[in-house]
Amino acid sequence: MTVSSKLTAMTASATAEAVRSGTTSAVDVVRDCLWQIEKLNPVLNAFTDVTADRALTEAAGIDEAVASGANLPLTGVPFAVKNLFDVEGVVTRAGSKINLENAPAKADATLIRNLSRAGAVLVGGLNMGEYAYDFTGENAHDGNCLNPHDLSRMSGGSSSGSGAAAASGMVPVTLGSDTNGSIRVPSSFCGLFGLKPTYGRLSRHGTYPFVGSLDHLGPLARSAEDLSLVFDVLQGFDENDPAQSDRPVLATRAELAKGANGLRIAIAGGYFRQKLEPEALAAVDKVALALGASAEIDIPEAARARAAAYVITVAEGANLHFERILHRPHDFDPDTRDRFLSGTMVPAVWVQQAQRFRSWFRAMMRKIFEHVDIILAPATPFSALPSGTRAITLGGETMPARPNIGLFTQPISFIGLPVVAVPVWPDGSNLPIGVQVIAPAWREDLALRVAHQLERDGIAAAPVARI
Amino acid sequence: MTVSSKLTAMTASATAEAVRSGTTSAVDVVRDCLWQIEKLNPVLNAFTDVTADRALTEAAGIDEAVASGANLPLTGVPFAVKNLFDVEGVVTRAGSKINLENAPAKADATLIRNLSRAGAVLVGGLNMGEYAYDFTGENAHDGNCLNPHDLSRMSGGSSSGSGAAAASGMVPVTLGSDTNGSIRVPSSFCGLFGLKPTYGRLSRHGTYPFVGSLDHLGPLARSAEDLSLVFDVLQGFDENDPAQSDRPVLATRAELAKGANGLRIAIAGGYFRQKLEPEALAAVDKVALALGASAEIDIPEAARARAAAYVITVAEGANLHFERILHRPHDFDPDTRDRFLSGTMVPAVWVQQAQRFRSWFRAMMRKIFEHVDIILAPATPFSALPSGTRAITLGGETMPARPNIGLFTQPISFIGLPVVAVPVWPDGSNLPIGVQVIAPAWREDLALRVAHQLERDGIAAAPVARI
Repeated sequence: MTVSSKLTAMTASATAEAVRSGTTSAVDVVRDCLWQIEKLNPVLNAFTDVTADRALTEAAGIDEAVASGANLPLTGVPFAVKNLFDVEGVVTRAGSKINLENAPAKADATLIRNLSRAGAVLVGGLNMGEYAYDFTGENAHDGNCLNPHDLSRMSGGSSSGSGAAAASGMVPVTLGSDTNGSIRVPSSFCGLFGLKPTYGRLSRHGTYPFVGSLDHLGPLARSAEDLSLVFDVLQGFDENDPAQSDRPVLATRAELAKGANGLRIAIAGGYFRQKLEPEALAAVDKVALALGASAEIDIPEAARARAAAYVITVAEGANLHFERILHRPHDFDPDTRDRFLSGTMVPAVWVQQAQRFRSWFRAMMRKIFEHVDIILAPATPFSALPSGTRAITLGGETMPARPNIGLFTQPISFIGLPVVAVPVWPDGSNLPIGVQVIAPAWREDLALRVAHQLERDGIAAAPVARI
Repeated sequence: MTVSSKLTAMTASATAEAVRSGTTSAVDVVRDCLWQIEKLNPVLNAFTDVTADRALTEAAGIDEAVASGANLPLTGVPFAVKNLFDVEGVVTRAGSKINLENAPAKADATLIRNLSRAGAVLVGGLNMGEYAYDFTGENAHDGNCLNPHDLSRMSGGSSSGSGAAAASGMVPVTLGSDTNGSIRVPSSFCGLFGLKPTYGRLSRHGTYPFVGSLDHLGPLARSAEDLSLVFDVLQGFDENDPAQSDRPVLATRAELAKGANGLRIAIAGGYFRQKLEPEALAAVDKVALALGASAEIDIPEAARARAAAYVITVAEGANLHFERILHRPHDFDPDTRDRFLSGTMVPAVWVQQAQRFRSWFRAMMRKIFEHVDIILAPATPFSALPSGTRAITLGGETMPARPNIGLFTQPISFIGLPVVAVPVWPDGSNLPIGVQVIAPAWREDLALRVAHQLERDGIAAAPVARI
């Protein structure tokens, strides 16, 4: 099947420009978008909810505003959100069966409101791994979300629909969440630019949580500029998220043209170059070469950082779902059920020791960032796995596939560092793989500048998948 | 053996007045105090460290200051501290064997400095239950601290030496710590006035912790006025304890004369009148009658509050001592070893659910305090138990003795409420028992006023034990 669409294959910035200039209308963009969803979604299973009426009404309002001279940064840009975002009038599923019993949300999540105010148009909610505890994009309740670049493969999770919808051109931009890698993994598997901002940067108000001290929200898009454009709009202090920082908005888009100029860029060595497939190593090296980066730096105790993130995740996740997992375990996806059940038995001492180590690790990384501005690391140890893969062999060691997809993302989100995942295409392969461009806390601008340069130089790209 | 001493049998306020007026000197008071310790301590085992040289030097300084016209509230008052307080040049034992390997403390704890500045003279460190995890006053390393009113009985813990030293007249006032009852239990068993202030009221800087979110420091004395006098001096903001509130100092002494006038006083019913011996029930009723209080109020979920305090205590305690309990369990007191070991296996989910319940319980108690000013409850379910008691029968149920000494203190400290334990003497008994006078958060003044009135009316009293 081939679907062609000039409008939705465009980036967000190009779409906004086209609507603003009158080349097309917001209603036309949204109609095209809805048509694409109708054609592609039965194949990919990226959307769980389509808010067509709302989208068309909002689009008509945008067109009126444009006619009256309005000039908004995301004028007429369609977007969709992982279904853990509250959407007014829609039940917030969070990928689960149980949450379908809840009443529909009474209001949009803060980040949806921020995008709407900037002229963007919400078109629906997206498939995700149950309660965000997933790296595969497989969901026993709503069905697996497939990879637009190879339908036999995983889209990656837990923001699976956010990856598949943007990569297939159904929408130019999506929102996801990332606790241990859930934006960066689907970005890697689906070939997208994905931004996991600094912990505390964006309001999480109106979204279904997973692990309070690790949850981040962020955008996925098909260009670094779109990421930047959307990120700038997503920011703004919201007193309703007690973990959000009240730092001033960081305007990143105007910085993009600087590229990697003047930045000290290093390659993460040791742990980050051991258990991975050749395509992952090659992608990092390709990016490093293009940026003139050759220095390797060691991130001490990265394996322990991942283990600690694991312990905190499983224990806090189990706590959040305690009543449900005790009283109705069979309403859970089998793949999350075992995790949450085991989480109920993790000793408190482990969690406290993990938190203690976390402080050490954060301080240590802060020291490393006195000497470098950007660190490069693989986003995933391999390109998208065939759906249903249960075991993998890395560095001669056979291990469970699902958890180890996050081998390289977990140590980084553990301390909340901002990361842009950039999509690289191994020679002769139709499957992308992501590279993490990691910046110091609160410096998303640096990672976005590097991603933008890689895109400009043809090293990273996020073409619409041909389905 | 009978020891008579006019000086140390005096209260702190009377001592300060005598030194200030020149009736006696600080050096004479301290000499008398040291002599008392020399005579009584071999029997009671209350002191683990006596700082005689320092005390005599400081006393000489006080006498000079008095000669120069100084007028300090605690002029020449000897005091001693539970050995978890840092004392410059002394190893902070915290009742353990392991801590003896540490270097001596480099500076005094903040509360010691506050008392010294007010003219009080530190004479030593006091026996305690290992790492403050104790209600009995028994310590396998330093030996049991005995009850001055009956040497065959427990002093109560974990501030055992703080109870025995003040009750025996070795010093008029001591400092202890209270996590789940460790000031109130020895106050009850030894017949003292003991104050557990509101959580966050006094700086804990320079003391060895047990459970960060439950640890309180406070004074024990032989009169309500002494408690008040010392409490007023102990206050003051110290940026070194991150949990300390920066509320202004509450001057309580000038309020004492008001007594219980105008206060709405209720008796804690249900849970607090079920599993206890007749002397405990009679003591509460005697106090209530004297205060004209007859209304019983129910504190919902008190048993659950105690259980939650338990879970948090054992898990956080085990976390604090994790390395030590794993690698050298045999260097622990057998009675704390089992607790800390079991604490390493408490699931994180239990702790998180306990914390969640804690918020509910705090909010619920806040509502109750909209309708009453003071709540009366037993401090312990019985008078001091015979040393070595392992099991007790309460309400027809046989249970382990040691943990259940804290049956009535734990639900109250769980949410940090201020309490004055007042000593009541059952008819025909030479053994005291304490009643908790519980006030709303930050209103230690109310509890102290009630305690003062009870003392004035002869309902509560803390005579020096005859040994």
